[in-house]
Amino acid sequence: MGGDNAPVEIVKGALDAAREDGIPVILVGDEKRLAAELGKHRFPESLVSIRHASEVVEMAESPSTVLRRKPDSSLVVSACLVKNREAQAMVSAGNTGAAMAVATLKFGRIKGIVRPAIASMMPTIHGKAVLLDAGANVDCSVENLLQFAMMGDQYAEHVLGVPNPRVGLLSIGEEPTKGDELTKATNAALQQVTDINFIGNVEGKELFRGEVDVVVCDGFAGNLVLKISEGVAELMVSMLKSGIKKNPATMLGGLLVKPAFQALKNKLDYAEYGGAPLLGLDGVCIISHGRSNARAIQNAIRAAAKAVEGDVVGCITKAAESVKLPVGETASSTRP
Amino acid sequence: MGGDNAPVEIVKGALDAAREDGIPVILVGDEKRLAAELGKHRFPESLVSIRHASEVVEMAESPSTVLRRKPDSSLVVSACLVKNREAQAMVSAGNTGAAMAVATLKFGRIKGIVRPAIASMMPTIHGKAVLLDAGANVDCSVENLLQFAMMGDQYAEHVLGVPNPRVGLLSIGEEPTKGDELTKATNAALQQVTDINFIGNVEGKELFRGEVDVVVCDGFAGNLVLKISEGVAELMVSMLKSGIKKNPATMLGGLLVKPAFQALKNKLDYAEYGGAPLLGLDGVCIISHGRSNARAIQNAIRAAAKAVEGDVVGCITKAAESVKLPVGETASSTRP
Repeated sequence: MGGDNAPVEIVKGALDAAREDGIPVILVGDEKRLAAELGKHRFPESLVSIRHASEVVEMAESPSTVLRRKPDSSLVVSACLVKNREAQAMVSAGNTGAAMAVATLKFGRIKGIVRPAIASMMPTIHGKAVLLDAGANVDCSVENLLQFAMMGDQYAEHVLGVPNPRVGLLSIGEEPTKGDELTKATNAALQQVTDINFIGNVEGKELFRGEVDVVVCDGFAGNLVLKISEGVAELMVSMLKSGIKKNPATMLGGLLVKPAFQALKNKLDYAEYGGAPLLGLDGVCIISHGRSNARAIQNAIRAAAKAVEGDVVGCITKAAESVKLPVGETASSTRP
Repeated sequence: MGGDNAPVEIVKGALDAAREDGIPVILVGDEKRLAAELGKHRFPESLVSIRHASEVVEMAESPSTVLRRKPDSSLVVSACLVKNREAQAMVSAGNTGAAMAVATLKFGRIKGIVRPAIASMMPTIHGKAVLLDAGANVDCSVENLLQFAMMGDQYAEHVLGVPNPRVGLLSIGEEPTKGDELTKATNAALQQVTDINFIGNVEGKELFRGEVDVVVCDGFAGNLVLKISEGVAELMVSMLKSGIKKNPATMLGGLLVKPAFQALKNKLDYAEYGGAPLLGLDGVCIISHGRSNARAIQNAIRAAAKAVEGDVVGCITKAAESVKLPVGETASSTRP
């Protein structure tokens, strides 16, 4: 029931995932409205069911009290399905903060993980990179960032199938001594971690050129990167369009290059990236964009299925036990 | 003598500024090499002179010891010219850290200003916005950010000629409660400043849509924004180009839309933005990109002349005395 286009696009995307990908889905929300939506489509009935939930969490609601205030919301009921092993993953396009809070409280954190992180997929020239944290934790410690590195590494390897992922630390300069206090301390600590293929600091260049598979940063920087990227892409498209409209020759050219534009648009479209997994919890939760259309939801459900197949929870649980991360005073220090 | 293209492009750009803009320039560096460059051009001789400096600061040199180690470098000699009122401003495309360190030590900070900031020009749909700090101070306090807001406001109004500039705080969410601890505390403090037209938190969207004139952030976030923007722009251009090369029709279209591409490239080209002023010092210093070509240097010299004409130093000095910024425990707290 969450997101700007619920339930129409959510149901459509879920049915596409069932039909095209063979993924069983449980639609959680107002029974009557969901049944009415289902009535409009043909779909494999054995793969689709409805679970009633009488309440909806609004986009502006305070995340911290949702569990208590709206125990029968589609969000809380979804989390309970995963908790009770009736579902293997949940996908939400609703209130991100609320989804995080509810998933964290219901699933619990994996033992040893201090903070869960949102892992967002970034387009690159060669494919994509995982950026985390994309906004779950605005203020982070070195310990948090080390765990993000470990979780991103596990996700890239076991879910995305990248062998020995290259893990970079987002900073403003490639040298280990460049960056703010948090970044410098994290770089020093990551160099000591032998189980992670740490390639050092990375900047925008390396990220978008596909020279790194996992980019680690605090949630403030990560979310900034997402929003600045969106802003720049919007600026460039808008300026190119107005440049193209200048005269008949460029307008004709514009028509001819439309396929290239469309390919670019697809590449940059959040809908292609299928939502961001919340890593570090004892259960799979995929956060989908509030503006998600059917395609975005289908991709989010695929991402959920992949996370389950790759056993991301099991892998992170094992890594949290076995990977040695430096601890002590430095590692637990926050921004000065 | 600083920058990747010195002295050839630097001299060329300086002569263009003298010839086209009537700005008197002093070329500081190796006398013989500069004289040899001058010999290749025609220029208004009364506006151009050479000041010999026997040393050059290399790009990789540690900034902190330049003043002591290379007292006769083109950088130090330039700063001395400004200090001794023989020049009204300096422009450098060399080692940014060294230029900042030398300018800070030679000019001194304006009374009351705790840290100088690099003010970078960002392209927007409607024109440009000032982003500061773009990298001078990676770890900042609320007090630093308040002063950046005040300095950016003075620069936008008196040098760029923007009446009552809209000042925004870079964050990840428009509500005052969104962002990391530093941003939230700065938002609360800025709301109390009556002399600044504070419009609240801004994100990538508002920045590139031209809905804000001055964007305030710490140097880590600011430099991140610059580098991510460059990375996204590079990614988009590269993907569009490879899309256009796909078949003869799109290739023809690509030729036809070339003027639109060129206009976009010009708009995004750092060379059009003429370097970034270092604000908060008792003297004008413009930091130019290390890759600066003649056009970038000419624009940097124009920016220097404008900063002098607009009396940015005098304006910030006055504002530092008169603008009431909240002080106390909150205002001096750093990232937690």
